[in-house]
Amino acid sequence: MRQVDEQGLADIAIGAAILGTGGGGDPYIGTLLAQRAIEEFGPVDVVELDEVPDDAFVIPSAMMGAPTVMVEKLPSGREIDNAFRKLEKHLGQTATHTMPIEIGGLNSVIPFCLAARLRLPLIDADMMGRAFPELQMCMPTLYGISAAPMAIADDKGNTSIIDAIDNRWTERLARSHTIDMGCAALIGLYPLTAGQFRDCTIGGSLRLAEELGRLVRQTREAHGDPIGAVLDRLKGFRLFNGKVVDVHRRTETGFARAEVKIEGLGGDEGARLTLATQNEHLVATRDGEVLASVPDLIIVLDSENGQPITTEDLRYGFRVTVVAVPCDPRWRSPEGLALVGPRYFGYDFDYVSIEDRMGEAVG
Amino acid sequence: MRQVDEQGLADIAIGAAILGTGGGGDPYIGTLLAQRAIEEFGPVDVVELDEVPDDAFVIPSAMMGAPTVMVEKLPSGREIDNAFRKLEKHLGQTATHTMPIEIGGLNSVIPFCLAARLRLPLIDADMMGRAFPELQMCMPTLYGISAAPMAIADDKGNTSIIDAIDNRWTERLARSHTIDMGCAALIGLYPLTAGQFRDCTIGGSLRLAEELGRLVRQTREAHGDPIGAVLDRLKGFRLFNGKVVDVHRRTETGFARAEVKIEGLGGDEGARLTLATQNEHLVATRDGEVLASVPDLIIVLDSENGQPITTEDLRYGFRVTVVAVPCDPRWRSPEGLALVGPRYFGYDFDYVSIEDRMGEAVG
Repeated sequence: MRQVDEQGLADIAIGAAILGTGGGGDPYIGTLLAQRAIEEFGPVDVVELDEVPDDAFVIPSAMMGAPTVMVEKLPSGREIDNAFRKLEKHLGQTATHTMPIEIGGLNSVIPFCLAARLRLPLIDADMMGRAFPELQMCMPTLYGISAAPMAIADDKGNTSIIDAIDNRWTERLARSHTIDMGCAALIGLYPLTAGQFRDCTIGGSLRLAEELGRLVRQTREAHGDPIGAVLDRLKGFRLFNGKVVDVHRRTETGFARAEVKIEGLGGDEGARLTLATQNEHLVATRDGEVLASVPDLIIVLDSENGQPITTEDLRYGFRVTVVAVPCDPRWRSPEGLALVGPRYFGYDFDYVSIEDRMGEAVG
Repeated sequence: MRQVDEQGLADIAIGAAILGTGGGGDPYIGTLLAQRAIEEFGPVDVVELDEVPDDAFVIPSAMMGAPTVMVEKLPSGREIDNAFRKLEKHLGQTATHTMPIEIGGLNSVIPFCLAARLRLPLIDADMMGRAFPELQMCMPTLYGISAAPMAIADDKGNTSIIDAIDNRWTERLARSHTIDMGCAALIGLYPLTAGQFRDCTIGGSLRLAEELGRLVRQTREAHGDPIGAVLDRLKGFRLFNGKVVDVHRRTETGFARAEVKIEGLGGDEGARLTLATQNEHLVATRDGEVLASVPDLIIVLDSENGQPITTEDLRYGFRVTVVAVPCDPRWRSPEGLALVGPRYFGYDFDYVSIEDRMGEAVG
């Protein structure tokens, strides 16, 4: 068990924005939210997955919606408490822990707010090992575990308990609610005992996020190469270096969708990289050729200082380095690709791992 | 307490289609559904409002969606049981009775199906005294009573419990679910004790529907004037006699919307009546002048035999008589008109009662 200090929270937010592949909302706002909750309610105990007893009853927590909206409509305590308490009441069972469902700017720190407010320990794990845009895209789905019943709550006081037949239906029904609720809602879902989810989560993801955030900060302070440091740590690949020349953004069907065009600089001069984004970056295409795709992580970093840039912050003129990082190997199974591969998102090509695309094995 | 026989059910369906003002779905299909449920599970005990003890716990039941879709996607037992049982479980309380929330083709008989399946007595009452398109448009809303928590279920097995801050929010969240669920869903809502709702429902509406259905049937059999008989019974007015020349229909935002154009015949020769419809008929306009509007009942009857014609059955060439009937006086209060008056539906005119429009007092 450990407690995360102010610097740790800031580092987690930055690292989570790296692993969040463009989605998850502004990491700074997330940090402020978590710091405020911790100041008000006291520090949060972060526990490792193997410290949690099998019969611990865990309700993971997250914000659902378009990050573009979430950052302008921050959660109050009200919907956080509402979502959680209604689900507990519905289930007739009190949660002993919470945890993130994904690693991404806001959604890595929302569980800190909740843990602080409700005095619950927070498990250092998540269910994606990155961020994905839809809530069935969690590892437990691969293991036949239901996201339902899930609770959803808004800032006005509306709540629902959704009990759908499968996790795609849960996503669909919750997405409509999210749109009605103004494109940002607090959710509690995948209510599980630790025994049930131990094998189908990614342990240590908060620690990894903190390490990445610290790495970027310390390497920058030492005038080193923070992007190189991140790539070393994650066994990733540099895809493209350039200048953002167009960001076509729209909030649609409850998601922040975008197409980002980047013109090459330096060695990439004359080429153009396009990113297709649904909250998170899905596909990177160089002059018509796919360079990387989901479920591998496509990450946009500031070329100057290595800071991750979220989709809603991308602007014309930004100098960026686009990198790709191998995803959790379980996402590469046929079942994993059916859930989060390029074809699920409507692309007409088969997934090829970033290591294979780059023509080298990574140890 | 009484039981309704096969002829009674058929009469109720016809009478309910009259009071349903175009909405509520096909009365024949409703009758078949109820008959099938009663054959399978046994007869339904219908009880009067004043026979129900104050502490009886009532969950009214209905179908939500576009009647155009509902008639093609009939409810199975599954969603009926699901909606009801999930709400009971959520509330931790078992229903002792059910009742309709509105009087309209399907929604007068759906509670019969539910009462038969679950062996519950059915209360002879409703919450509108007619049919309205949105679920906050129930008398209890005028008394500050919440429709939530409500249950919603589809034929696939999906259910949700919606617990919104007011009845318009309940409608909004449930409507999105209804659209996701294929524009037809089973709902249980306004869970109440009889003591709570005794003053804010319309008692005897099944009996009235049965009487109207019988009146049309018997007057027709006696070669009398069934339309005149209905108008006498309901103190209504003949608005227009003509031939349907255009029906512009669309299923939109979870409703069946239509604009119906009728060309005058006989004394109305040369004139044109237009009906604006959102599941139910909202406004009748003659050559640009409003003749009748919500909350008064606008009813389309077959000129030949007095049978009510629902919105989805209206076709080019039908000879119809359009009549208007005064609504329950409580809908005419300022609060009632704010909920169901023409301005709520986006029309820029004040409500004038049908009696005032017709220039005569009705005793």
